[in-house]
Amino acid sequence: MAKDIKQAALDYHAKPTAGKIAISLTKPAETQYDLSLAYSPGVAEPVREIAKNPQDAYKYTSKGNLVAVISNGTAILGLGDLGAAASKPVMEGKALLFKRFANVDSVDIEVNTKDQQQFIDTVRLISGTFGGINLEDIAAPDCFEIEKALIEQCDIPVFHDDQHGTAIVTAAGMINALEIQNKKLEEARIVCLGAGSAAIACMRLLISLGAKHENLFMIDRRGVIYDGREGVNSYKAEFANNTGPKTLAEAMQDADVFVGLSGANLLSETALASMADRPIVFACSNPDPEIEPELAHSVRSDLIMATGRSDYPNQVNNVLGFPFIFRGALDVRAKVINEEMKIAAVYALCELAKEPVPAEVVEACGEGELSFGPTYIIPKPVDRRLLGVVSAAVAKAAVDTGVAQLPYPEHYPLK
Amino acid sequence: MAKDIKQAALDYHAKPTAGKIAISLTKPAETQYDLSLAYSPGVAEPVREIAKNPQDAYKYTSKGNLVAVISNGTAILGLGDLGAAASKPVMEGKALLFKRFANVDSVDIEVNTKDQQQFIDTVRLISGTFGGINLEDIAAPDCFEIEKALIEQCDIPVFHDDQHGTAIVTAAGMINALEIQNKKLEEARIVCLGAGSAAIACMRLLISLGAKHENLFMIDRRGVIYDGREGVNSYKAEFANNTGPKTLAEAMQDADVFVGLSGANLLSETALASMADRPIVFACSNPDPEIEPELAHSVRSDLIMATGRSDYPNQVNNVLGFPFIFRGALDVRAKVINEEMKIAAVYALCELAKEPVPAEVVEACGEGELSFGPTYIIPKPVDRRLLGVVSAAVAKAAVDTGVAQLPYPEHYPLK
Repeated sequence: MAKDIKQAALDYHAKPTAGKIAISLTKPAETQYDLSLAYSPGVAEPVREIAKNPQDAYKYTSKGNLVAVISNGTAILGLGDLGAAASKPVMEGKALLFKRFANVDSVDIEVNTKDQQQFIDTVRLISGTFGGINLEDIAAPDCFEIEKALIEQCDIPVFHDDQHGTAIVTAAGMINALEIQNKKLEEARIVCLGAGSAAIACMRLLISLGAKHENLFMIDRRGVIYDGREGVNSYKAEFANNTGPKTLAEAMQDADVFVGLSGANLLSETALASMADRPIVFACSNPDPEIEPELAHSVRSDLIMATGRSDYPNQVNNVLGFPFIFRGALDVRAKVINEEMKIAAVYALCELAKEPVPAEVVEACGEGELSFGPTYIIPKPVDRRLLGVVSAAVAKAAVDTGVAQLPYPEHYPLK
Repeated sequence: MAKDIKQAALDYHAKPTAGKIAISLTKPAETQYDLSLAYSPGVAEPVREIAKNPQDAYKYTSKGNLVAVISNGTAILGLGDLGAAASKPVMEGKALLFKRFANVDSVDIEVNTKDQQQFIDTVRLISGTFGGINLEDIAAPDCFEIEKALIEQCDIPVFHDDQHGTAIVTAAGMINALEIQNKKLEEARIVCLGAGSAAIACMRLLISLGAKHENLFMIDRRGVIYDGREGVNSYKAEFANNTGPKTLAEAMQDADVFVGLSGANLLSETALASMADRPIVFACSNPDPEIEPELAHSVRSDLIMATGRSDYPNQVNNVLGFPFIFRGALDVRAKVINEEMKIAAVYALCELAKEPVPAEVVEACGEGELSFGPTYIIPKPVDRRLLGVVSAAVAKAAVDTGVAQLPYPEHYPLK
């Protein structure tokens, strides 16, 4: 990051007031009468109603539009374990994005423990406050156990965005890239560099969308994961591939797809050159991708490439997912965000990318024409249609799979 | 409560949106550049700064103006133990009052446990998120242990408003009432009906302001608390009075002050009639006081009376305290809210009541002239001067007692 943007980011957070979010009132609170309704004595009435019927919390409090963004700071962005307190700017940033993109009210909670059970207990005990929980920046493998336990123990959607948000947006871009390159997910040889929570969730989702286990190579610091190799936990073991290749270079030979969720400059020109015709490279390491786009395109002119960066085409950005996924889930009061809802979000993103792009989106992006093709495989975050399209698809999937507690909203576009 | 206000309160909470509070953004979040500062990649900078110096959370996040209102719902208003979920409208109401009166951002957290240690652990683990913690509606005696433990374990102010907020506002009114009745706190015979957390905190504060233990009678369902009586926990035992009286009627004989923190209509005409000359009655049970004001004044024309209700003179209302106490504490980043800060708030309220009342306050209250005397012993909640006066007094006391981490604010009125 350039020095000037570093200072600009610090200034943005510090001035004129500290932080990025505040509380606002949605009801009048001026007169004595207003206050007698908002607080004592009037507030006793909604209290009594909720005591009789807990679901009335959705009627009389902000619960139904309120998502907690919760972290313990053990895996902050790409920076590592910097502690709960240091994660607060990221969590508040997530809250800002929730509000900005989907009008979801969101508060951050930093839980100061690395103890898995203590984290789970803490979140479970406060979960009734919220309508949903977005887990964030929690290191693997704890994040898997934590999410699983909280999904079981809470009656509201619990969603670890680093896993599923990343997976959903990546999968959407991947499906479109494969279509453009005239390849099938079922036949694609896929190399995943990185074996953290995002990588594991991405590969799980690609498999549930049709990718074949035997065509998939997951690679960590020690190379390809295969049965019996050292340093393979049960989550990585799920992707063990015993078909031969042991190194990144070997796995990349004739690969159709490279997904990088690892670190800067870890993909060599040689490895890229060895890929099959019409390759696809998602180099999602941030801020510096696994290979620079200019370099990659100079090595392979038949390439479709995506990165995590907004200054290149095809940005894989979680903000395309989580605000709208929660919006849809909250609007039908889904008890969970299940696999069908995630897949619905994937296909909604795929389809939206094929629609003509409104002029204001083109203008805001400043990249010239945007139409479905190698340099436009997924929608842009500034595209206001995301809210309607993705939320609606998620809500419909929730209703269709029986996890919604409210009917499909009348104001939604799809029926 | 009349049926129409009940329905109005339900409607207020339900329409047009559920609840009373929402999140708002304090920074621009429109352009791609804005978002690159608010979230990735820019947000990494404040993360790094806070990791290096945890105090920078106050500089780069909303922590410094953020108070959590936390309950387990074991003693909601006067309604009792209705559970954590049912307390949410009250906690959101408190958040609304924090924002409305002192521009303190506040979020509610309902902790779903009655286990004391589990509650303490949960709050401690999430406390770093906030600049202060307002405990609320937690049953005695657990509330005492919980507050004590959290004050010890957290590095931010922890304040149980049902105790201290009530005590501060009650004491302020009491000091002024005694002055008008030409009595001394040191000599006053005080009867406290009720032995819950508010009663105990009120009596503790009156004693620390000069009331004499031997002149004070605390009364629970079984009568006056004295040494060796049945059903006396260690908190009640602090107020054991062995000087003779065993019943409310006996204690009321020649009493100067009655403080009711109990239930409707528990003070009889006979008991009131037996009080000393120029008696003071604080009948704070809500919504129905221990004795109706009209009846009380018909029995004793030399009476000064206060209630918890806004439709009678002299309303003892916590909103006169907690927003400004936290405002002052946050503005100097006090590590605790100590006894000196509470007492400073008491005297600030006393003094403000003696100042001429601005016309807009008189008008808003609609009771006609307001000047220091039997029907105006404490300021009105609508009095905008409270923010400057009470916050400044609390901040000054924090600085003077060495618990402030910032200097006395330049924009504050007192020096």
